[in-house]
Amino acid sequence: MAKLYGIGVGPGSEELITLKALKVIENAKVIVAPSPKENGQSAALNIVKNFVKEDTEIIVKQFPMGGEDQEDKIYEAFKTIEARLHDGLDVVFLTIGDPFVYSTYIYLLKYINEKGYETETVPGITSFCASASLAGEALVIGDEPLLVLPSTRLDTVKEDHKYLVIMKVYNNEETVINFLEDKGYEYVYVKRAYREGQEVIKDREEILKNKDYMSLIIAHKN
Amino acid sequence: MAKLYGIGVGPGSEELITLKALKVIENAKVIVAPSPKENGQSAALNIVKNFVKEDTEIIVKQFPMGGEDQEDKIYEAFKTIEARLHDGLDVVFLTIGDPFVYSTYIYLLKYINEKGYETETVPGITSFCASASLAGEALVIGDEPLLVLPSTRLDTVKEDHKYLVIMKVYNNEETVINFLEDKGYEYVYVKRAYREGQEVIKDREEILKNKDYMSLIIAHKN
Repeated sequence: MAKLYGIGVGPGSEELITLKALKVIENAKVIVAPSPKENGQSAALNIVKNFVKEDTEIIVKQFPMGGEDQEDKIYEAFKTIEARLHDGLDVVFLTIGDPFVYSTYIYLLKYINEKGYETETVPGITSFCASASLAGEALVIGDEPLLVLPSTRLDTVKEDHKYLVIMKVYNNEETVINFLEDKGYEYVYVKRAYREGQEVIKDREEILKNKDYMSLIIAHKN
Repeated sequence: MAKLYGIGVGPGSEELITLKALKVIENAKVIVAPSPKENGQSAALNIVKNFVKEDTEIIVKQFPMGGEDQEDKIYEAFKTIEARLHDGLDVVFLTIGDPFVYSTYIYLLKYINEKGYETETVPGITSFCASASLAGEALVIGDEPLLVLPSTRLDTVKEDHKYLVIMKVYNNEETVINFLEDKGYEYVYVKRAYREGQEVIKDREEILKNKDYMSLIIAHKN
C-alpha cells in the first residue's frame, strides 16, 4: 500500500534539512509542495530543489494561511494526493520548518489517515530553533517553561513566563515591543533566519524599520 | 582565529542530523561531547559516531544535569576547549536535540564568547518535534500558543494554554497525568523517540508501567 511522507524541510537553507529528509526526497516519485498563493512559488520546494531527481513528478498546490477557502484548498490537495496513493505511488509532502508546529499538514494528515493509507512524518528544524542559533540566544534553560505564541496572543503571557518566542510579528512589531519593554523583557528580533537577507536586530527603532514577513522575536526576563 | 561549533545532533537517530551538522562533524579536528557521568558514555557522540573521521580527537567531558558541581564541570570543559582553540584548532561541541533548548551549551558559549573566540551554532531537531512526528500528533495549530515545560512546573499552565509539551516526566508521571485529566486535556506519552525502545502510549496504566527517563507528554484540549 502506498504511503504519504510528511517532510519538515527546516527554515530555509538546504543545509538544515535532515539526512532522512534528503533520502526521502531523493527517492520520491511524487512531491507535493504548498504555496500560499494560487500558481505561486513554493518556499518549501525551493529549499530542496537541488536534491529533487529529474523524473520526480512535482505538484505545487495552494495552501492558504488561514482565510475562508483554506479548508477547500486543503481538501483539493488531499484529493490530488489521494489519486496518486490510489495508483500505488508514494507521495512526499513538504512543509517549511517542522510539520507539527503551526502547519496545515495536520489537516491533510487527518484526511489521509481517515482513508487508511500509511503515513510517516519526518521532523524538521523549527524557525525558532534556527533563529536562536543565528542570534546565539538561548530559547529556554533550567527548570523554566518556554512559551511560543503568535503576536496576536500576548494575552497568554503570564507573570511566570520568563522565556518567550513571539511568532508572526509582522505588522504587529510596535505592540509586541511595547508589551515586552513594559513587562521587563530583553528581546532580539530575527529576520529571515537561514534565508537571503537574514538579520539579527536588537535596537527598537531598527526593528520597527525592518518589518519583514519572515521574522520572530526571542525574549527573556530575569 | 579558531572557532567553536555548537552542533545540535537531534533526538537520537543519525538520520535526524542536518546536512550542515554532518559536514561540520566530518571535517572536525576536535570533537567535545558531553556525558552526564564522569567517564560515562556520551549519547550525543553515539548518534554521530559513524560520521567521525579516524584522526579526529574525541574528548568526552562530564556535563552534569544540574547539581552542585555543574558549574565547575562546565568550566572544566571550557578550559579544555579553550586550550584547543588557543592552539588554533576549531572545536566541535555536540548537544542532544537543539543547542538552545534546555541545554548546558549556553553556559559554555558564554565563557567562549567572553574570550572573544568566533562561534557558530547549528540548530537541531528537538525531542518534542521528534516525538510529535513519531506519534502523528500536532504540537500546535492556528492562533494558539504552545507551552513547553518541565513536569515540575505545572503551575505555569494557565486556562488559555491548549497545547502543552511536558518534558522530563520521569518519576512524576502520575502527578502529570492526574493534572491533565483534571484539566480536560487529551495526552500521549512518547518514550525514547528515535532511539532503541521507542514507543507511543495513550493508556494511563500503560504509561505508569512504562516509566522511562527519555520521555515526554504531548497534550491538547479543545
